[in-house]
Amino acid sequence: MNEPVFTLSAGPTTAPDRVLAAQARPITYHYDPAFLEGFRRTERKVAELFRTRQDVLLMQGEAVLGLEAAARSLVRPGMPVLNLVSGVFGKGMGYWLAAFGAELHELEAPYNDAVDPEEVDRFLAEHPEIELVAVVHCETPSGTLNPVGEIGPIAKRHGAMTLVDCVSSLAGIPIWPDEWQLDVCVAGPQKCLAGPPGMSLMTVSDDAWSAIRANPAAPRASFLSMLDWKEQWLEGGKFPFTPSVVDVHGVEAACDVILEEGLEASFERHAQAAAACREGARAMEIDLWPVSDEVAAACVTALAVPDGLTDTQVRDHCRARYGVMISGGQGAGNLVRIGHMGPTARSLYPLLGLAAVGRTLLDLGAPVKLGDGLEATLQALSKIEQVV
Amino acid sequence: MNEPVFTLSAGPTTAPDRVLAAQARPITYHYDPAFLEGFRRTERKVAELFRTRQDVLLMQGEAVLGLEAAARSLVRPGMPVLNLVSGVFGKGMGYWLAAFGAELHELEAPYNDAVDPEEVDRFLAEHPEIELVAVVHCETPSGTLNPVGEIGPIAKRHGAMTLVDCVSSLAGIPIWPDEWQLDVCVAGPQKCLAGPPGMSLMTVSDDAWSAIRANPAAPRASFLSMLDWKEQWLEGGKFPFTPSVVDVHGVEAACDVILEEGLEASFERHAQAAAACREGARAMEIDLWPVSDEVAAACVTALAVPDGLTDTQVRDHCRARYGVMISGGQGAGNLVRIGHMGPTARSLYPLLGLAAVGRTLLDLGAPVKLGDGLEATLQALSKIEQVV
Amino acid sequence: MNEPVFTLSAGPTTAPDRVLAAQARPITYHYDPAFLEGFRRTERKVAELFRTRQDVLLMQGEAVLGLEAAARSLVRPGMPVLNLVSGVFGKGMGYWLAAFGAELHELEAPYNDAVDPEEVDRFLAEHPEIELVAVVHCETPSGTLNPVGEIGPIAKRHGAMTLVDCVSSLAGIPIWPDEWQLDVCVAGPQKCLAGPPGMSLMTVSDDAWSAIRANPAAPRASFLSMLDWKEQWLEGGKFPFTPSVVDVHGVEAACDVILEEGLEASFERHAQAAAACREGARAMEIDLWPVSDEVAAACVTALAVPDGLTDTQVRDHCRARYGVMISGGQGAGNLVRIGHMGPTARSLYPLLGLAAVGRTLLDLGAPVKLGDGLEATLQALSKIEQVV
Amino acid sequence: MNEPVFTLSAGPTTAPDRVLAAQARPITYHYDPAFLEGFRRTERKVAELFRTRQDVLLMQGEAVLGLEAAARSLVRPGMPVLNLVSGVFGKGMGYWLAAFGAELHELEAPYNDAVDPEEVDRFLAEHPEIELVAVVHCETPSGTLNPVGEIGPIAKRHGAMTLVDCVSSLAGIPIWPDEWQLDVCVAGPQKCLAGPPGMSLMTVSDDAWSAIRANPAAPRASFLSMLDWKEQWLEGGKFPFTPSVVDVHGVEAACDVILEEGLEASFERHAQAAAACREGARAMEIDLWPVSDEVAAACVTALAVPDGLTDTQVRDHCRARYGVMISGGQGAGNLVRIGHMGPTARSLYPLLGLAAVGRTLLDLGAPVKLGDGLEATLQALSKIEQVV
Repeated sequence: MNEPVFTLSAGPTTAPDRVLAAQARPITYHYDPAFLEGFRRTERKVAELFRTRQDVLLMQGEAVLGLEAAARSLVRPGMPVLNLVSGVFGKGMGYWLAAFGAELHELEAPYNDAVDPEEVDRFLAEHPEIELVAVVHCETPSGTLNPVGEIGPIAKRHGAMTLVDCVSSLAGIPIWPDEWQLDVCVAGPQKCLAGPPGMSLMTVSDDAWSAIRANPAAPRASFLSMLDWKEQWLEGGKFPFTPSVVDVHGVEAACDVILEEGLEASFERHAQAAAACREGARAMEIDLWPVSDEVAAACVTALAVPDGLTDTQVRDHCRARYGVMISGGQGAGNLVRIGHMGPTARSLYPLLGLAAVGRTLLDLGAPVKLGDGLEATLQALSKIEQVV
Repeated sequence: MNEPVFTLSAGPTTAPDRVLAAQARPITYHYDPAFLEGFRRTERKVAELFRTRQDVLLMQGEAVLGLEAAARSLVRPGMPVLNLVSGVFGKGMGYWLAAFGAELHELEAPYNDAVDPEEVDRFLAEHPEIELVAVVHCETPSGTLNPVGEIGPIAKRHGAMTLVDCVSSLAGIPIWPDEWQLDVCVAGPQKCLAGPPGMSLMTVSDDAWSAIRANPAAPRASFLSMLDWKEQWLEGGKFPFTPSVVDVHGVEAACDVILEEGLEASFERHAQAAAACREGARAMEIDLWPVSDEVAAACVTALAVPDGLTDTQVRDHCRARYGVMISGGQGAGNLVRIGHMGPTARSLYPLLGLAAVGRTLLDLGAPVKLGDGLEATLQALSKIEQVV
Repeated sequence: MNEPVFTLSAGPTTAPDRVLAAQARPITYHYDPAFLEGFRRTERKVAELFRTRQDVLLMQGEAVLGLEAAARSLVRPGMPVLNLVSGVFGKGMGYWLAAFGAELHELEAPYNDAVDPEEVDRFLAEHPEIELVAVVHCETPSGTLNPVGEIGPIAKRHGAMTLVDCVSSLAGIPIWPDEWQLDVCVAGPQKCLAGPPGMSLMTVSDDAWSAIRANPAAPRASFLSMLDWKEQWLEGGKFPFTPSVVDVHGVEAACDVILEEGLEASFERHAQAAAACREGARAMEIDLWPVSDEVAAACVTALAVPDGLTDTQVRDHCRARYGVMISGGQGAGNLVRIGHMGPTARSLYPLLGLAAVGRTLLDLGAPVKLGDGLEATLQALSKIEQVV
Repeated sequence: MNEPVFTLSAGPTTAPDRVLAAQARPITYHYDPAFLEGFRRTERKVAELFRTRQDVLLMQGEAVLGLEAAARSLVRPGMPVLNLVSGVFGKGMGYWLAAFGAELHELEAPYNDAVDPEEVDRFLAEHPEIELVAVVHCETPSGTLNPVGEIGPIAKRHGAMTLVDCVSSLAGIPIWPDEWQLDVCVAGPQKCLAGPPGMSLMTVSDDAWSAIRANPAAPRASFLSMLDWKEQWLEGGKFPFTPSVVDVHGVEAACDVILEEGLEASFERHAQAAAACREGARAMEIDLWPVSDEVAAACVTALAVPDGLTDTQVRDHCRARYGVMISGGQGAGNLVRIGHMGPTARSLYPLLGLAAVGRTLLDLGAPVKLGDGLEATLQALSKIEQVV
């Protein structure tokens, strides 16, 4: 099987050359003083991306590890928890919260829409016992974004902590734990940060640490333990186990790339790439999955698959025929997704994605206005000050 | 802080250039057909290294993850378990087994010696209720090796399963799950295989799967779940979560390097490097930590630190002064360790390690016969048919 | 200055990851036995690409070095030489031939057309004294191709040797020294072979060697000497000077990539990419530079720049605004060029190039039918069995 | 054939990881603005290494190219030239000077000794017609160093230009064109700079340019032309031909490594590594080739091969048996050479080299005091403030 020519998936995504090169750096012993320095430097760089003064944890394992660790650490059996659901990742978090013993409440939005912060406010007012609100920032499977910047302060005002899945946001969409008063955030390096999958980049507030320390059910002496990292590493300088040296090298380089570019510049090009992609899709007469541009995420554009076709057909034809790897719906619906993450959120990548999807749809018998769509995408890109 | 010039630690160890290059390969989407093929190819290559027909799991997370997952999966609350302890890793496994609800029995050997299989046989004869025997193959922190090849069949004869920590053995010291009738083996890629840290390479027997499936306490829907990998990936072709693409690339390349060399050749040079190192240490009049050559592991030579000095002093001086990173005792005793793993188990690496340690000891005031030791090491190396 | 996002130039071109990785292999001593083996292996692989049994020389220095070396080696002062000119490279060769003492004859074709073999035949019939015919296979600066496969045998029939500049053809367009009876061919690795610039890949016939040995003006004891390589390296196993180890590693990997794919498959995709690009340009109403598809080269599409604009303007805007690096006219005319070389001769690269150029022309005020052009390109690509 | 485990040759030498990584950077078009910037940046960095305000030329081709180009550019037929010979490279330069038409004078020193500056002074006083003095700084094949810092001003005082072969000095041994009034210097990146072979790093004084411009025999419109680079690139911004992008990337990274370390620090560790190696060789009772420590070069230690053995035997056994690649005598005598260049001029590399050579000599039947020698080397290294 040939390697893909272009990876425009919803993550793991195309990584910059500097990240790849960093992953080829010699592997060192984890207690080598140069590695210890590098690990701490990486923590600080991740903190810069979050603009936070909270503790940063670099846990080993794809973001699912961080989410599970956070949920297990925060949820005390019997704890009243509000889970906000607007997609499959939110839904999945609910299963975990319940499994870990929470008294689970859920507010649901359709999977092509976002949670309404006023509804959250009302619910919390009616349920002052809620101690924790769980929310997904970007529901990557359906390309939508929840207003975490509004939800965080609401929760805090009602005395509840927040557990935020911002796996695909970091470095591409603003996510500010301090300003938004978020307690635990879990991001992944393999999305807008364009690093290697394999780590959970987390922020933890003092409130969260207090709750976790007080929670007898919080994992201890476990690969899933946030407390081990806090007590052994952050406070004691000893790793709970061998960190994944290669991923750490990759994550640091990915942070460097974004920090040198500037966070604002990165946010802007993610937003512009997504807007140009939506513009093109509309002109091509492909339905956008999100109910409105307001709820559409900047890191991925979800396109409805026309009736009679499946996401898998489209994704597989696109890859097999044109060498372009996009993502399917991952359970969120009959949709395909073009990622705008890291390097693919610049230059002509949105055009590439649309061209591949559009031509694929034609090949599979679905009518699309291919030329109009591509022209519209380029038109949108041509108006951007700096696409490179 | 300068990067180390030579990494002769007990792992993560120096990786071959091919492994580093593989880690710089483009990151692909985890459902890219090329990655799917590569993942399965890597499973088969790991199976070849174990010479096994059992299931192979490539779990994400340093070997500690695999060990915790295995212990949690196998141990049913109240299950009678025998834990064999000859070092800190064995000791630590006992804490876990107990924490997960086992009725724990332990046989202990001094931390510079190995478990006696006859004692195991006697114990199991006296305790026919034992359902699981946990044992560490190579106690890396103290450089000793337990006779797992004898213990496995003994356990099986007594109707007990085995859980084997062979983290540092794979590719450097024979470990044969099928021939030795082992039920769960957990190896790490960052030792003799000389790949990236960040994965657990596991074999699982049918007996083990039966026990795990029957165990209500076995992790499910969790990062720690072996069952998720079995049911979703091995049987369903869906990853339970995003695999760490970069580590997988590195592990496959590391397998390729060893498979092209030949496992027997690899075993031989690990044994020879360790023997030459011990030869030199003796001539240098540094005490070897293991009680005898018979229990000394081929992948790491543990040297007693002279009275009045600490392992940290020796390790840090060696690194700061000579750029050579070795390992300390990691709780096993006042010892330092020179790794013979992957690329460092060939050529003049054993000499390098001894020269650095020997000169460090002189610098710190401990008398050693430096010239004699180095001469003896080279003498030993010169007798080897092929050190390259 | 940002790095380019896409390099679609006429070479040096985008190299495959395997080539880049090979260039990062440890640098070895040039007499290291592994390097000696690798150098000879690379010679054989280059011979395979040429399907030749002639000597292959891997001279150090971009193809201009090989061309100069060949011209100096072959041209005896006073030697009657026919130089075929259909572009700037052919023209430049004439300056050299004259400077090195040839009695120069030239047949010229317009710079958007090809040499007519019948005219060559007639000329040689009228000038039986001609000892050498110089011809450029692909005139990369103007994107045209000369019928070297016809010219070679004609020259041989008339008793003349041939000196062929096939710098940009190798691995992308058939070039057969043996079948076509060519005496000296000079190719570059940085074009369709998609390797590093910095070497001249040459084939030399026995006739050519005889002529060179007999030529007192042929360079000897010089960086420009083909004879040094023949006598010292090919016949004596000693390098005339240190080879560029890194380039050799890159060239070998580039050969591997093509040989594993298959030469025919590579030729096919170069031809298809160029055809799709021309198709799109026509639909976009951009004038193709070559007078006809018959003389258009498969490795690069030359597009006429509309009146009122310069090639530099177009090239620079395209790079600055969209991050896509294309090539200008390099003296051949007011044209820009989209390369189809190595990795860029597959998948949607032709679309990328046209989108960038087309949108740039619009930005600069020249009317193009952007959507129609892109649609036509994709239409053409969709008909290809395998674009990946 | 296995790759070497350690490359301790006299160049090409072991390159730092950063250099290798830079060589794997994407290949760009040579007129890409980012490459243009990088090329100029590299020129400035090379100028920094030479601490010069003169023009720097980065010619393509191993240093032999630069030496030939310089000799051809400077030598006018009939020009009286003094060539200083203390080894095979000096001797070879004489052949060229004569071949290019110089009226050649030579002062010779034994091949294990250095040129005497007073003798040069006397000769030039007696031959005021001499217009050019050619001298080799480090005679790498015999591990000796000529006092170029004294010879430069002497020549200038007598009205003669200097052509300096400092191929192996740059970044390891002070070489100051401005302070020492040198006219053309030619260095190689693959020695102490530890970059890729394949380029000539040159400095050219205004006096030299005047002479070259006035020389009708100076190469023009040629790969060997310094004038082309001056007029087309330095003054016109156009490359005479495609530069070797990959080598340029590697050279820049190699400059970065040294400039970040600091030139003085680099000089010091080269000197210390060589001194420790000589110390060890003496204790081992191997004869040093250079007649005294004063004339011994810091970048390579030449060791006399005992009677009855050849340099090839020693070199090949050392490589085949221990995986350590050293250099033979390259025509300078029956000697082998351990390089101290770039990364190998630090840490325990000198010990490694001596251990390999010493044990090889024992294997081949020559008596050496192996232990004493290694002990002495380590003793010397232990006295250095900072070997890492």
